[in-house]
Amino acid sequence: MATLTEKGTFVNNDLADVILKRQSIRNYDKSVKISHDEMTTMIKEAITAPSACNLQAWHFVVVDTPAGKDKLRSFFMHFNTPQLETSSAMVMIFGDTLAFKSYRNLWNKAYDNGQISAEKRDEVFKTFLPLYESASKEMLTADATVDSALAAMQFMLVARGHGYATNPIAGYDATKAAAAMGLDPDRYVPVMAVAIGKPAPDDKDEVKSVRYEADQVVQFK
Amino acid sequence: MATLTEKGTFVNNDLADVILKRQSIRNYDKSVKISHDEMTTMIKEAITAPSACNLQAWHFVVVDTPAGKDKLRSFFMHFNTPQLETSSAMVMIFGDTLAFKSYRNLWNKAYDNGQISAEKRDEVFKTFLPLYESASKEMLTADATVDSALAAMQFMLVARGHGYATNPIAGYDATKAAAAMGLDPDRYVPVMAVAIGKPAPDDKDEVKSVRYEADQVVQFK
Repeated sequence: MATLTEKGTFVNNDLADVILKRQSIRNYDKSVKISHDEMTTMIKEAITAPSACNLQAWHFVVVDTPAGKDKLRSFFMHFNTPQLETSSAMVMIFGDTLAFKSYRNLWNKAYDNGQISAEKRDEVFKTFLPLYESASKEMLTADATVDSALAAMQFMLVARGHGYATNPIAGYDATKAAAAMGLDPDRYVPVMAVAIGKPAPDDKDEVKSVRYEADQVVQFK
Repeated sequence: MATLTEKGTFVNNDLADVILKRQSIRNYDKSVKISHDEMTTMIKEAITAPSACNLQAWHFVVVDTPAGKDKLRSFFMHFNTPQLETSSAMVMIFGDTLAFKSYRNLWNKAYDNGQISAEKRDEVFKTFLPLYESASKEMLTADATVDSALAAMQFMLVARGHGYATNPIAGYDATKAAAAMGLDPDRYVPVMAVAIGKPAPDDKDEVKSVRYEADQVVQFK
């Protein structure tokens, strides 16, 4: 099992480079394989992301086999074919609307580890847990979506830390994603796919996309 | 206007430290003020995040005045009082379900800047724009939520790059958030609040929250 170290396992540890120079890559070097050990490490680093009430309602399906990619082909839009065909893996990220069912074990583990007191644990069981047990599907979906997007963003940055490029993809038939991956579509909501790999050697630099000016999206109150 | 440099403006540029040692802080040093210039810089750095079709459906309301915090008090849950009372600012992050209305201007600007060809621009207008113009409120909400969460995650990391701590908060009455901030509640969906500031000098180290083992949230296909 891959371990998570305090210093990470980054070949590029330059925050400014990782965040500010990230851009989506669509054409990858097909010869590059990412070991399951390294992929697991990257996901462990990614899921240090925060989540509402520490619910961690994220779920990752790493597709890196021809059979797995065949399944993706059945519901991906055609303009995402280059990433599908050339990436080392497509990582499908789902929100788990029933994550709260594991919640009791998680907090018991924190107590067993000596990280929280029995009182703190019981307070969580009395406050947050009933909130989720009685929540609407709409709230569970929204929370799972946000949790998963936070982890997805960290995954894209961690990938750069490991020397890889990514492309987040929303262009697929969301109604088919969970079932195609063998998951219960009532429970798991698709949030995004992330293609990961090394840019193709002959990939011409893709255009860095334009952003709105800050004053268009920021107000002070 | 704050400018965005390639090297960022980070006092802590250590990716591993920023990502792997991030944890939520609830008690801040009340004497710390963050200038609007620095806040704007941090948001500009955060919105280098990707978004579906580059729609950038995020909107930030930075609350750093007593009057603004009074408005937050009216719909925040009481257990978030410490962050509300002590943080330098509460940054309310909303998804903008009508972001596509600015989309034409954005791509025209990319063309004017020489970043894309007229053909590429027109292709976007013919493919992505109609998709959003005819989209359901549910799809627009989901896309805006994911975009905003991606930017929110980068904001929390960028904040650490600037030497600040954060706490993402979902504990408020979501039905009241937009109107209280003077926004159209039909258009703007609340995604999260992020408290930002420097930890209080007497803040005892908060417990780093527990994560599930990777094999509970990862599958390979």
